[in-house]
Amino acid sequence: MNTIKLRSMLEQFYLEDIGDCDLSSEFLFPESVIGELNIVAKMDGIFCGTKVIEEGVRVVDRNTTVNCYVEDGTPIVKGSVIATAKGSVQSLLKSERVILNLIQRMSAIATETNRVVGKIEGTGTKVCDTRKTMPGLRMLDKYAVRTGGGFNHRNGLFDAVMLKDNHLAFAGSLTKAVETVKAALGHTVKIEVEIESFEQLQEAIAAKVDIIMFDNCTPETIAEWIAIVPDSIITEASGMITNDTIRTYAETGVDYISLGYLTHSVKALDISANVSIHTK
Amino acid sequence: MNTIKLRSMLEQFYLEDIGDCDLSSEFLFPESVIGELNIVAKMDGIFCGTKVIEEGVRVVDRNTTVNCYVEDGTPIVKGSVIATAKGSVQSLLKSERVILNLIQRMSAIATETNRVVGKIEGTGTKVCDTRKTMPGLRMLDKYAVRTGGGFNHRNGLFDAVMLKDNHLAFAGSLTKAVETVKAALGHTVKIEVEIESFEQLQEAIAAKVDIIMFDNCTPETIAEWIAIVPDSIITEASGMITNDTIRTYAETGVDYISLGYLTHSVKALDISANVSIHTK
Amino acid sequence: MNTIKLRSMLEQFYLEDIGDCDLSSEFLFPESVIGELNIVAKMDGIFCGTKVIEEGVRVVDRNTTVNCYVEDGTPIVKGSVIATAKGSVQSLLKSERVILNLIQRMSAIATETNRVVGKIEGTGTKVCDTRKTMPGLRMLDKYAVRTGGGFNHRNGLFDAVMLKDNHLAFAGSLTKAVETVKAALGHTVKIEVEIESFEQLQEAIAAKVDIIMFDNCTPETIAEWIAIVPDSIITEASGMITNDTIRTYAETGVDYISLGYLTHSVKALDISANVSIHTK
Amino acid sequence: MNTIKLRSMLEQFYLEDIGDCDLSSEFLFPESVIGELNIVAKMDGIFCGTKVIEEGVRVVDRNTTVNCYVEDGTPIVKGSVIATAKGSVQSLLKSERVILNLIQRMSAIATETNRVVGKIEGTGTKVCDTRKTMPGLRMLDKYAVRTGGGFNHRNGLFDAVMLKDNHLAFAGSLTKAVETVKAALGHTVKIEVEIESFEQLQEAIAAKVDIIMFDNCTPETIAEWIAIVPDSIITEASGMITNDTIRTYAETGVDYISLGYLTHSVKALDISANVSIHTK
Amino acid sequence: MNTIKLRSMLEQFYLEDIGDCDLSSEFLFPESVIGELNIVAKMDGIFCGTKVIEEGVRVVDRNTTVNCYVEDGTPIVKGSVIATAKGSVQSLLKSERVILNLIQRMSAIATETNRVVGKIEGTGTKVCDTRKTMPGLRMLDKYAVRTGGGFNHRNGLFDAVMLKDNHLAFAGSLTKAVETVKAALGHTVKIEVEIESFEQLQEAIAAKVDIIMFDNCTPETIAEWIAIVPDSIITEASGMITNDTIRTYAETGVDYISLGYLTHSVKALDISANVSIHTK
Amino acid sequence: MNTIKLRSMLEQFYLEDIGDCDLSSEFLFPESVIGELNIVAKMDGIFCGTKVIEEGVRVVDRNTTVNCYVEDGTPIVKGSVIATAKGSVQSLLKSERVILNLIQRMSAIATETNRVVGKIEGTGTKVCDTRKTMPGLRMLDKYAVRTGGGFNHRNGLFDAVMLKDNHLAFAGSLTKAVETVKAALGHTVKIEVEIESFEQLQEAIAAKVDIIMFDNCTPETIAEWIAIVPDSIITEASGMITNDTIRTYAETGVDYISLGYLTHSVKALDISANVSIHTK
Repeated sequence: MNTIKLRSMLEQFYLEDIGDCDLSSEFLFPESVIGELNIVAKMDGIFCGTKVIEEGVRVVDRNTTVNCYVEDGTPIVKGSVIATAKGSVQSLLKSERVILNLIQRMSAIATETNRVVGKIEGTGTKVCDTRKTMPGLRMLDKYAVRTGGGFNHRNGLFDAVMLKDNHLAFAGSLTKAVETVKAALGHTVKIEVEIESFEQLQEAIAAKVDIIMFDNCTPETIAEWIAIVPDSIITEASGMITNDTIRTYAETGVDYISLGYLTHSVKALDISANVSIHTK
Repeated sequence: MNTIKLRSMLEQFYLEDIGDCDLSSEFLFPESVIGELNIVAKMDGIFCGTKVIEEGVRVVDRNTTVNCYVEDGTPIVKGSVIATAKGSVQSLLKSERVILNLIQRMSAIATETNRVVGKIEGTGTKVCDTRKTMPGLRMLDKYAVRTGGGFNHRNGLFDAVMLKDNHLAFAGSLTKAVETVKAALGHTVKIEVEIESFEQLQEAIAAKVDIIMFDNCTPETIAEWIAIVPDSIITEASGMITNDTIRTYAETGVDYISLGYLTHSVKALDISANVSIHTK
Repeated sequence: MNTIKLRSMLEQFYLEDIGDCDLSSEFLFPESVIGELNIVAKMDGIFCGTKVIEEGVRVVDRNTTVNCYVEDGTPIVKGSVIATAKGSVQSLLKSERVILNLIQRMSAIATETNRVVGKIEGTGTKVCDTRKTMPGLRMLDKYAVRTGGGFNHRNGLFDAVMLKDNHLAFAGSLTKAVETVKAALGHTVKIEVEIESFEQLQEAIAAKVDIIMFDNCTPETIAEWIAIVPDSIITEASGMITNDTIRTYAETGVDYISLGYLTHSVKALDISANVSIHTK
Repeated sequence: MNTIKLRSMLEQFYLEDIGDCDLSSEFLFPESVIGELNIVAKMDGIFCGTKVIEEGVRVVDRNTTVNCYVEDGTPIVKGSVIATAKGSVQSLLKSERVILNLIQRMSAIATETNRVVGKIEGTGTKVCDTRKTMPGLRMLDKYAVRTGGGFNHRNGLFDAVMLKDNHLAFAGSLTKAVETVKAALGHTVKIEVEIESFEQLQEAIAAKVDIIMFDNCTPETIAEWIAIVPDSIITEASGMITNDTIRTYAETGVDYISLGYLTHSVKALDISANVSIHTK
Repeated sequence: MNTIKLRSMLEQFYLEDIGDCDLSSEFLFPESVIGELNIVAKMDGIFCGTKVIEEGVRVVDRNTTVNCYVEDGTPIVKGSVIATAKGSVQSLLKSERVILNLIQRMSAIATETNRVVGKIEGTGTKVCDTRKTMPGLRMLDKYAVRTGGGFNHRNGLFDAVMLKDNHLAFAGSLTKAVETVKAALGHTVKIEVEIESFEQLQEAIAAKVDIIMFDNCTPETIAEWIAIVPDSIITEASGMITNDTIRTYAETGVDYISLGYLTHSVKALDISANVSIHTK
Repeated sequence: MNTIKLRSMLEQFYLEDIGDCDLSSEFLFPESVIGELNIVAKMDGIFCGTKVIEEGVRVVDRNTTVNCYVEDGTPIVKGSVIATAKGSVQSLLKSERVILNLIQRMSAIATETNRVVGKIEGTGTKVCDTRKTMPGLRMLDKYAVRTGGGFNHRNGLFDAVMLKDNHLAFAGSLTKAVETVKAALGHTVKIEVEIESFEQLQEAIAAKVDIIMFDNCTPETIAEWIAIVPDSIITEASGMITNDTIRTYAETGVDYISLGYLTHSVKALDISANVSIHTK
């Protein structure tokens, strides 16, 4: 994770939440009142977000100290104390909401990724994310997927080529689309192609693309088609894969299963914060 | 909604997704190739996001034209065409992902808000949101709640006072906490207090706070306590309210029920985009 | 005050003043020359701006140390040393102008607010500000009003409703305007209405608005009208109130008097800075 | 004026004032309601701010059209219509406050500059500003001084050298300070020196500085000292110059009088805006 | 190229150059004076920069119109008119320097890339760039390399893995380094390894890395080593390659030669601008 | 140099290079692995860039410590260790490229400036830069010229007037152009005029401009014309000056020679970085 970017994001997020003044805390607590913020799990799961906590409290107040007791990717159980921060109560109260909103999301993504990775354990298939992340939060969303044991698909339109139906239709054929792009593309970038028919599959193999994506295919189709894909080409299944069918998909031998819902439909992992005030 | 802010957000979101180059589209389509982007519902729900579509395509390319056929807050059914944009295919392909990621979230929030509003219909109780929004997206999250028929709780720490256990503990009593804050607070700002006991409730009424929140109370407790709250004070229930219990809570006569999950646990409403290329 | 925002503002202000280079100080003083900056009152008044001093010198050079001897809201007299900063002379010389420009304004606002608050002492009426602040400086302007013993009116268009003649005209009546807005407005937001006639006043009371503003009314009118306003509605007078008439206005029993000139017409409180160089 | 910078400033200022939503106008007016904003003088003065009006309404809504009837630097009288903008009423209501706050300040600066320029008419002395401008508004403050017939002193620490007592003390003498700076300074930058004694004056002349500033001197002293300053060196008086004494200062033959109060103590020129709604 | 990013860069660049005011043009030309800017080649080369011209003049003034007569990647000869812009003379004069500074650099990069591509024509080897671009200008630098017929190496640390001596030393061996990274890396990202010995080469082949870089090797070594590299692995030569030796390197059969000097040591291609004023 | 601006630039540059993640270093090195970065000269030259190193490593990681052994403007020889930084290896590896890209450019500019200054040693003529700097890097480019013993021409359009052929043509004559500008220009700003004929030269002298630039003149012409320029006016030669002719130009007695190539055509000075890992 890029902490320069994280700090800059946190500054924006705190401006959104605090505005010009925390009317409740600034009008009640003198800055000199010192206390302790404890971040506590209220559900079991896989934790993700130490850097958010560490940088978050410091962005609000550089004099706050913080200890995280849990590493990213490790399990937490209901009641676990995740981190403790000490400093001005005003600052602690300003810090908590943004941190919770982020780590509840990140931990939820890590936890669900971990669950689904467990579900296909032993098949050799890996789980990966998509570009269906929350705008402005992609760095954190993708970090959380990795933390949960998943893998990242391309980060954006800039770091891998993905040729879909429109591209192929315009070029006239998959072969021509790949040729056109390769003529200009740097050698450090991979090309992935979405396949919808057996003919396209044959073309993709002949064109030596790096990754073949089976889009909205049944497990049966994938199992049949994958047989002719050479080892040097990575395979990926995407679309229409549910909790009930994912293991069947994995058993086709496909290398990766990409799941948009990991980041577009997140059910927050409950984590709370409480602040205690040191005796005056 | 503040469109100056929306445009600025969209610029950031497109930088995140496009980076320096859309390798797939820029390397395949000459800029002069013209086409059409159709945004289509793949599930039933309440739509939210016309401004995101209108400003989104224009931020990417000021020469793209766009028509939205659906107004925010109206129902869409699977298959409805929500909007059509015309312009350079390169630009349309760059535009689509950020727009979809946002309107799927916003429509999901509006749809779920609408569903829960329906569930307590006739009780007179209103549904509202919390500060548990996605950092960087609060303006859109809260707009979506309004679009779905819900109401907004405070926007941040800056536009309403909320006194919680810490504030009360530090001040010595609810009465003193309210007094301290009122001594400095502007007259355009309301004061809300979280109540955990009947004594606090009595104090809050005596202190003439604007809003009393029953935090993590049973419907029975609320029903009993609410009886002594004068009409001039607004009541709100929060915490531990589920789909099964919400109507019971509403029937206590509480004015507002605030629901964090509306914005912290969003299951995207499926909306897709397809681009067709005009005959060359 | 939000110090994250303050630091970001100060960075912009120093870029405006320093540009790429302080030609005078950088070309004359080696960075290693150490000295002391003293900020000294040249007029009597109420001081406002410790955070500006503390953060200002640190934004320029994180190695500068600073002590403020005066708290915000306390009186200073001509000759009082307000603060001392120690560090590289280059940095001290770069720091001083932006800090002075801000604290002279903030202290002037606090001083004048304090003066006018004193003028209506004993009447029970409070003084508040408006949105007529200097663009980019609202957080500091409103903080200074509070520091001087005044109160803040709404912070912007986003945190309170203010219905004026246009709104009423469009809606058809005050009653309808209030109804329309209330139908969508969150419960944490107050509604204020500008009143220009007795009929409007009656409507406003019936509509149970939160605040009634008497705009450009004579003290006599206010005194007469205020008699029918129930205690649960806050009253505010605005417009045409001068130094000579303010006490008469206050004696009408109005709750708040809002004064635009406190922030739109500020006569700087004279404060100077001098830098001494430590013996080499 | 740099309109790229002006637009960027206006975007920031509108974010400050509008936040996420104009609760009053957005909740009352459909976007389709069209109207007219008239900006009207409520006091006599010299107008300044056409670009602020033109760019301001467009930053809020690119579909608003605007006509300014008054050029910067020309007189306005109470009642003059300065500009008319047409467009969505929502947008017009959002636009007005930021524009008024700026043009009231700019016109006030221009008007007062113009007044004081008139006061020393015929003496050949010119009026100029200082760095005592409002942080974040220097471009507009200095533009307003020019508009009123004044001249700009240096824009910041980066575009002219100003040697003061500290610089001279550190260097050991005025001569050495000038030498040290000249050894590194580009030939497009002028050097100004603050003079406090006749010896320093002689040194400054010998050192061929570009500008000599008489700081806090009486008119008598200036008149005496100026006699030995060659024509090739520009003279400037600063400090302790009041409305009563300014003409006496000007009559010493000094080339420029710099006045901090023009920008640090501005009494807003009253300008108002009213919005009318077109028949539906 | 991402035009959202380009516009944002241009805004920054014009703020750097124009500051608050173009003293020469604004003080001499009324805004209403119209003219024409011609951008003319003063040397032969390959042109690069149409988007910079088109967006540049519009960022300064949205009313300027512009025509580019030359496409990126096509040859220009001394005297060719590259583009013509029409609009306010003030705006044209403000526009020109930033545009020239950028297109002189971009065209120089394209021209030199094109020259060196020509020098190894027929060998099948391709030329690519490095991360040795000018900070803040990478998007433009890399675009210019593509325009000249070269290819882009990775865009930054985020879009491809490059394992160098430190990484290998820490991991214990090349094999272990590749394994460690692959255990966490997404499938859309390639791995490149710098090779310094024959043993490392063998390890790299066994580890099935995507790209092998021969760093600071002689052509003889490369020719010998490349013989054992399978077709599925891309080879790259880097370091110590001069104009005199590049063809010898290319003749080793290496797939790519990366050249840092294309972007770190650019000799501007001379392009000038002249503005003519339309008869008043 | 303005370090507030430098830090802000470095943050942008690191975002450009690191993006969301340094895939190579973050996936291989635990953050706790400590090491040392050495920056080493690979060519002889004049060093420039200590602040870039000091701030650069700290922007990436505030816990990194750094020592620079060489001051800006002093010679380095191949093999000299310029600086050592200690901290997390991950951070050191992220830091190095941006720092090198900048200091290679800055040192190259300083070195070439120093060389050309040496070439005209003894003539009394000084070398200066132009506005032909790399957009976004002007502060650093101009600092490097000073570091090499050169002088800075104006920083942008805002800090000095430069009247060229267009300005003169529009005004009708050089005399009128100077008059028009002087009528509005502040007294701290110099006026430079480009001269193309003897008539213009005479006009410029009569108009008492501050600087006369001989544009694209032969040394013979300059030598002849300079004879009539009074000492109070600074002279500058620009255009068509090569390494072979520069001394001849200097011998004309011209005060300044401005050289665009110093910043528009920079050949990087080779400086490398190596990171060693501390024993675990």
